[in-house]
Amino acid sequence: MSKVRAHISVSADGYVAGPNQSLENPLGEGGESLHDWVVALKAWRERHGMEGGEVNASTPVVEESLVGVSAEIMGRGMFGGGPGPWGDDPWPGWWGEEPPFHRPVFVVTHHEREPLTLADTTFTFVTGGIESALAQAREAAAGRDVLISGGADVINQYLAAGLADELELHVVPIFLGGGARLFDGVGPEVELEQVRAVEAPGVTHVKYRVVK
Amino acid sequence: MSKVRAHISVSADGYVAGPNQSLENPLGEGGESLHDWVVALKAWRERHGMEGGEVNASTPVVEESLVGVSAEIMGRGMFGGGPGPWGDDPWPGWWGEEPPFHRPVFVVTHHEREPLTLADTTFTFVTGGIESALAQAREAAAGRDVLISGGADVINQYLAAGLADELELHVVPIFLGGGARLFDGVGPEVELEQVRAVEAPGVTHVKYRVVK
Repeated sequence: MSKVRAHISVSADGYVAGPNQSLENPLGEGGESLHDWVVALKAWRERHGMEGGEVNASTPVVEESLVGVSAEIMGRGMFGGGPGPWGDDPWPGWWGEEPPFHRPVFVVTHHEREPLTLADTTFTFVTGGIESALAQAREAAAGRDVLISGGADVINQYLAAGLADELELHVVPIFLGGGARLFDGVGPEVELEQVRAVEAPGVTHVKYRVVK
Repeated sequence: MSKVRAHISVSADGYVAGPNQSLENPLGEGGESLHDWVVALKAWRERHGMEGGEVNASTPVVEESLVGVSAEIMGRGMFGGGPGPWGDDPWPGWWGEEPPFHRPVFVVTHHEREPLTLADTTFTFVTGGIESALAQAREAAAGRDVLISGGADVINQYLAAGLADELELHVVPIFLGGGARLFDGVGPEVELEQVRAVEAPGVTHVKYRVVK
């Protein structure tokens, strides 16, 4: 059965990006530290064309997060380029000529744009809201899973709408003190069941199933 | 070396009590569920004069949290009785004639009041702020540890002031959607180191050391 999965790194105080996000500082002040644990991993570095890296308790968690996912949804903020219309020289994403996704990516945005193909990743820009993006992603995934990769706003919307099946938090031992708050607008009507927790160097992975 | 320890149950979205706290509903809407995991434990039930209960992965965490602590600090909100002066018939606390603390408790409040002794627990009301409460608690603990037991506001104040040494979160798989937010006002200058994470039924325990 095809699942809708979300996973994201979050600070101990519940932020997925720090204060004052900008083009120069897309994860906000202090936000880069959210990903220290994953950038150190061999499993992540290989996927991003980098050498070396650690194998530790986070490795199977990251490997599992990649298996079975055949389409991905992200928000305009995560794709980047600032708010508003795309303009004549539209932002190509943060990831250069060879994005690390290797699957169709659906970008939820208020502004129309033609699809963008870079190497084996095609970005499709969806202006019809989260349900439309999910329908298109499900079709592209052809029975395999759909990943909601962020940011906070898009994950919050899918959770609040009851459309996510699985949520994994990578809880990092830092305080950001402000920024993009995960779970804003998600209320007690969304029921969770704890699936597992994994202690790893510099991070705790907590996986939940959304009770339907 | 005497340590200042804080531990508290928190929802997945970072609240230690739900919305609309009141005398009838001290933990706010949905907040009672924060403690389901601990109320089920034999280790907790014994301490509160109740029979039965489970032994599971949470048991050593709870036992550890009780060992070596000889004084406790809580906020006025946790002691209860509503805000403002104590009045002629002052609130005796939530816990009846035999409070479960069995050690001196220091209540941080804006309103003066004589100490209150119930069985083997004496509540001392401290109007001089968190530093004064800590000095008195340290003296009472005579070299053993001091527990900051809540609520959110008092824990946040001790963390922000750099006065806590250890923090353990009992992360419960529920969304409260509002209420008393842990870590409000605690900024990135407070550095954490993850000590351990423990998966247990219906809760994940994550322990941090505050880096000094």
